[in-house]
Amino acid sequence: MSTGTTTTTSREFVLSPAMCGANSLFVGRLGDWTWSAVSDACGVDALTARNADGEPTYLAFQLFDVRGADPAGFTFGDRIDVRTAVFACGAESVATLHRVAPAGSAGAADPTLEPAEFFEDRRPDCLYALNFNRWVSRSAPGSNRGLVRASPPGFTTAHLPELPREHSPRLACAQARQHLTLRDAPTAGEPGFAGFTTDYRIDPTRDLNGVGLVYFAAYFSIVDGALLAAWRSAGRPDAAFLARRTRTRRLCYLSNVDADTVLSAEVSSSLTGSPGGLTDEVVDVVLRDRESGAVVAVACQELTWGAA
Amino acid sequence: MSTGTTTTTSREFVLSPAMCGANSLFVGRLGDWTWSAVSDACGVDALTARNADGEPTYLAFQLFDVRGADPAGFTFGDRIDVRTAVFACGAESVATLHRVAPAGSAGAADPTLEPAEFFEDRRPDCLYALNFNRWVSRSAPGSNRGLVRASPPGFTTAHLPELPREHSPRLACAQARQHLTLRDAPTAGEPGFAGFTTDYRIDPTRDLNGVGLVYFAAYFSIVDGALLAAWRSAGRPDAAFLARRTRTRRLCYLSNVDADTVLSAEVSSSLTGSPGGLTDEVVDVVLRDRESGAVVAVACQELTWGAA
Repeated sequence: MSTGTTTTTSREFVLSPAMCGANSLFVGRLGDWTWSAVSDACGVDALTARNADGEPTYLAFQLFDVRGADPAGFTFGDRIDVRTAVFACGAESVATLHRVAPAGSAGAADPTLEPAEFFEDRRPDCLYALNFNRWVSRSAPGSNRGLVRASPPGFTTAHLPELPREHSPRLACAQARQHLTLRDAPTAGEPGFAGFTTDYRIDPTRDLNGVGLVYFAAYFSIVDGALLAAWRSAGRPDAAFLARRTRTRRLCYLSNVDADTVLSAEVSSSLTGSPGGLTDEVVDVVLRDRESGAVVAVACQELTWGAA
Repeated sequence: MSTGTTTTTSREFVLSPAMCGANSLFVGRLGDWTWSAVSDACGVDALTARNADGEPTYLAFQLFDVRGADPAGFTFGDRIDVRTAVFACGAESVATLHRVAPAGSAGAADPTLEPAEFFEDRRPDCLYALNFNRWVSRSAPGSNRGLVRASPPGFTTAHLPELPREHSPRLACAQARQHLTLRDAPTAGEPGFAGFTTDYRIDPTRDLNGVGLVYFAAYFSIVDGALLAAWRSAGRPDAAFLARRTRTRRLCYLSNVDADTVLSAEVSSSLTGSPGGLTDEVVDVVLRDRESGAVVAVACQELTWGAA
């Protein structure tokens, strides 16, 4: 357990076109900030890290948990304060927590950022992201399959506080693997989408990062794309899709895939009423390799939509 | 005509996952750097600009001309120096030139950046981008069609050098509009793709920026996607697509479209031999609104590919 106050750093940003929109650009930035914070805190530059064999090793995203304000609500010129803390989470992995507060708000002025704020006591005007990352290397040149654990020499987290055991990201990852959901608890409500399935072929013009792996942020668009396909199949209008507000976006990454892979996305959801005629929906999306059936990623979103 | 030496600014960057890859992230950054340079040079913050009626006005991309080193060759940790100059180009528009040089190279050390370097004398290890932008506002709330010219009060370029008249971006835009190509000259060679056509529906999970317009950088992926569809239809392997090297990427934007628009992309090309068994190809892509037939964008790429 963490004792004392967690060390935090903060930076201010002005949102530009390459940082916001109905796309995955903002989560991409969150990922960059995670790599930067871990590099500063743990003794190894994530951009150029190499494993004990001298081969490149990557600080891959295992769990990406965004809660609170919807990044789709950001627009050009918005000023944000990003406060970040890094936590120990095993010898070959690390956890990073970000609080994104409007500049000038009480959240932006608060230098503390403890795990309890993320799990139990979020500020309503802030966006939070918890990342759990693990070092992986390719096991075969040019292949994105069978990535292996490979911490770079010099990587250390022993000096960092730990996350509370009951909130370990390993538990969420184990739940995703075993039960194919990242919901906190079974959700009551009417069934929405019931196992709607759509295919998605990894797009070599959009989805590959600078080292040829499928970019973690691309999965956010792939999940949103599967939700949109389900949305349209249910006869819901595109305008309601664009106007939806998403309170939670969780993604657990179970394996990477090659550029020619076809994924099968399965979309399920539960609906409950919400004040003002709006609908609350909890959506599970499971991405599988269509050929092998292997689960590639598990996602969960909590959203509100309707005639707003 | 420009007299004396053009004023330039430079910044250094380390490439992170959100800045590179087989995607449009790097051109997105180039666009941000254009907005930033124009804001600094011309007296108006492009992120928050408003027209004389108090409505938002956007520094929209009309022409985006990337030449030299292929941004797809960038990877994590690469250090680059970005030198930028801004040029006058009419009362409601502006031109911006970037030279992206490897940090520590002769190009990075050179404080000058004249138009002639871009048009006639490029450094072989540098990437260049010329942007031509014009202020536009929505003519109807919520619609991306019928954008109108609308310069913000206070915007001034009178103090800036001009581009040489023969290289005015207006000429390239006029050529694109009239002749549906951005080639410098008719290209000799064997026919490659001959009017291959594929549809693309604007993707509300990928293509919209923070103000609901189709993001200029998304067109780069849309064009690459049309090229990939043509590529596959010709039986060329995906691996050769991913290994291709692109020397020129030009895009002329003729209109924005709404989020539910289906585009029709027409792909044509000319092939010539290249040393080492490689193939040089010049590709034209014309994007039209499938319903109205109106031309939305015209693109040209020069690339080299083969058994490398």
